[in-house]
Amino acid sequence: MKLICTKDNLKKGLFAVSRVVGVGNPLQVLNNILLKTDQGRIRLSSTNLEIGVNTWVGGKIEEEGALTVPAKLINEYINNLPTEKVQLSAKDTTLNLISENYKTNIKGLPSEEFPLIPQIAEEAYAKIDSNELKSALSETIWAAAGNETQPEISGIFLGFSAEGGETGKLRIAATDRYRLAERNAQLKEPVKSPKEVIVPFRTISELFKILGVSSGELEIYFSETQVLFKIDETELISRLIDGQYPDYQQIIPKGFKTEAVVSREELIHALKATSLFASESNNIQLEISEGSGIRVTASSAAAGENETLVSAKVSGSANAAMFNFRYLLDCLNNLSETNVVVRMISDASPAMIQPEGRTNYVYIVMPIKT
Amino acid sequence: MKLICTKDNLKKGLFAVSRVVGVGNPLQVLNNILLKTDQGRIRLSSTNLEIGVNTWVGGKIEEEGALTVPAKLINEYINNLPTEKVQLSAKDTTLNLISENYKTNIKGLPSEEFPLIPQIAEEAYAKIDSNELKSALSETIWAAAGNETQPEISGIFLGFSAEGGETGKLRIAATDRYRLAERNAQLKEPVKSPKEVIVPFRTISELFKILGVSSGELEIYFSETQVLFKIDETELISRLIDGQYPDYQQIIPKGFKTEAVVSREELIHALKATSLFASESNNIQLEISEGSGIRVTASSAAAGENETLVSAKVSGSANAAMFNFRYLLDCLNNLSETNVVVRMISDASPAMIQPEGRTNYVYIVMPIKT
Repeated sequence: MKLICTKDNLKKGLFAVSRVVGVGNPLQVLNNILLKTDQGRIRLSSTNLEIGVNTWVGGKIEEEGALTVPAKLINEYINNLPTEKVQLSAKDTTLNLISENYKTNIKGLPSEEFPLIPQIAEEAYAKIDSNELKSALSETIWAAAGNETQPEISGIFLGFSAEGGETGKLRIAATDRYRLAERNAQLKEPVKSPKEVIVPFRTISELFKILGVSSGELEIYFSETQVLFKIDETELISRLIDGQYPDYQQIIPKGFKTEAVVSREELIHALKATSLFASESNNIQLEISEGSGIRVTASSAAAGENETLVSAKVSGSANAAMFNFRYLLDCLNNLSETNVVVRMISDASPAMIQPEGRTNYVYIVMPIKT
Repeated sequence: MKLICTKDNLKKGLFAVSRVVGVGNPLQVLNNILLKTDQGRIRLSSTNLEIGVNTWVGGKIEEEGALTVPAKLINEYINNLPTEKVQLSAKDTTLNLISENYKTNIKGLPSEEFPLIPQIAEEAYAKIDSNELKSALSETIWAAAGNETQPEISGIFLGFSAEGGETGKLRIAATDRYRLAERNAQLKEPVKSPKEVIVPFRTISELFKILGVSSGELEIYFSETQVLFKIDETELISRLIDGQYPDYQQIIPKGFKTEAVVSREELIHALKATSLFASESNNIQLEISEGSGIRVTASSAAAGENETLVSAKVSGSANAAMFNFRYLLDCLNNLSETNVVVRMISDASPAMIQPEGRTNYVYIVMPIKT
């Protein structure tokens, strides 16, 4: 292998693939990045056996070849390099880098030791605008169960269907059984047949980071057990979670007794102030009534107590329940609308939060029983 | 105690005193901040028994009094508060805060439990411009010994004298016996008698943070065993370290055999690239010669090797030595000049770094013996 590449291209490529690489993995090649010449470009690949990333950058290929080198080392080296271009050449398992007054040898491992990243069907199953998907993920994925003892709900539900507007829709859901976030996103064109899958949280989280530095259209490919997301010059491949996602739609209440339209910022401030006096299980009390809006309270024997009144446009009967303040803040902090609508039934039934004037998003949270 | 204060004033006061307060100190009052009405203003105080901070903010005092409250809680509460003004009143040991629609009680401890912060001589011993001191500290204090087994060099040396220009000078030094940073700063007026003290690192580090948000003149007061720094409305009081600071000036070489003027940025990049291949004791090799400037090299059996040539204006004989790259970067990263001068005698004698064209600063570093 021998090639010349700009520092900026290498940096961009390394940035795309580096996050999934381990450090100190006993299988040493998993700490490495694969560099490979590929049809006139340079392919960089990384994998942690669950997720794989490929990205391609431009360069001048003088001799075909491939080699793996430690991800952390090459990253730090390239990020520090003050020069514009660098020549990379492999000799046995050593990568030689020459750039103006810098001469470096990095010890690598043969490309044959690098795990194969699976290939996936040639035809894209679905297409979606990257900003639409980014916004939908930002409003949902944090609601998944952090604990992997329940593998299905540790992942994110993706449900594709041809219905829902002219171009079909993607339903994204995440739940930990105490709260649920669901968002409908618009596809670019209807899918041929509906499909429901569960994608590992780590994969979606990595996809979210890739979307943060990409734009344009994202393509989604499937095999029996794998998914591939493709945007710009980067591919993210992951296994799917095998299992049945809970039929969560049945727990979303059809009607409510109390509704309050309230400033999202004001409610956040009130919850934060009150959270300082919440018990160890994060309990705070929400009381909604036509006269006083939303009253947020908590008291703790050690710290003291707080009461904050937030003005709100209330309709329906008065209502009160205890909630984990973190569950409320998770939702409110990830929305961007000025006002939200809070709906309640009783102190033992799920409550709902929606952004005012938008119906493609719903957040359901269970009260704490006292 | 009863008073009204703006949120911004309270926030500024809490910011100034909060850093020295502990969290989870078994002596609970040491986790608290003292609020006290004081001649028409509000005094906030904190202490960790080694360092004490007092600061004064304006407010409308309706009833004199004092109370201590947990620092972390009041800080988070005030920082989150969306309103402009807040009324504080003490009832027994509870602080009641009322602000528009916020009503809060914070449990505190009686002010009598709060340790006395010592009073210091009424007359300032020395005065210095805060920017001059900030710049001098930034170039020196990181060179102190992190380890407190040698208490003298765990602190920062301050030597005041009436000599050195018209207004007297302050000599600041820090060393860990392997390297030494010394800077002469200009005082605003000559001191009446010379004085040499050792101030704990933690105190100087806190002073540096206070200087970061202050401007104007800093006054320095002394008692037998204590020092007080006063700027704007804030006082920092600390014990001094008892002991004899090493007579470091004798180890500063009077003459050198090799001198290289080099770009600071280029040398930093070369050291960083090479550091990736340094051994576990951080060894890298510097070779200076008229023909090739500065050659920076390192090699490690595991990672590989690097050689970077940095062009330099060299005079004197060729020379080479091993250094801990962190010791070199500490100095170079904290200077701001474009060029630095590196001077060497041999692979067993101290080397020197100075910013080009400035003589009030010197950095001495010992080579590593191989």
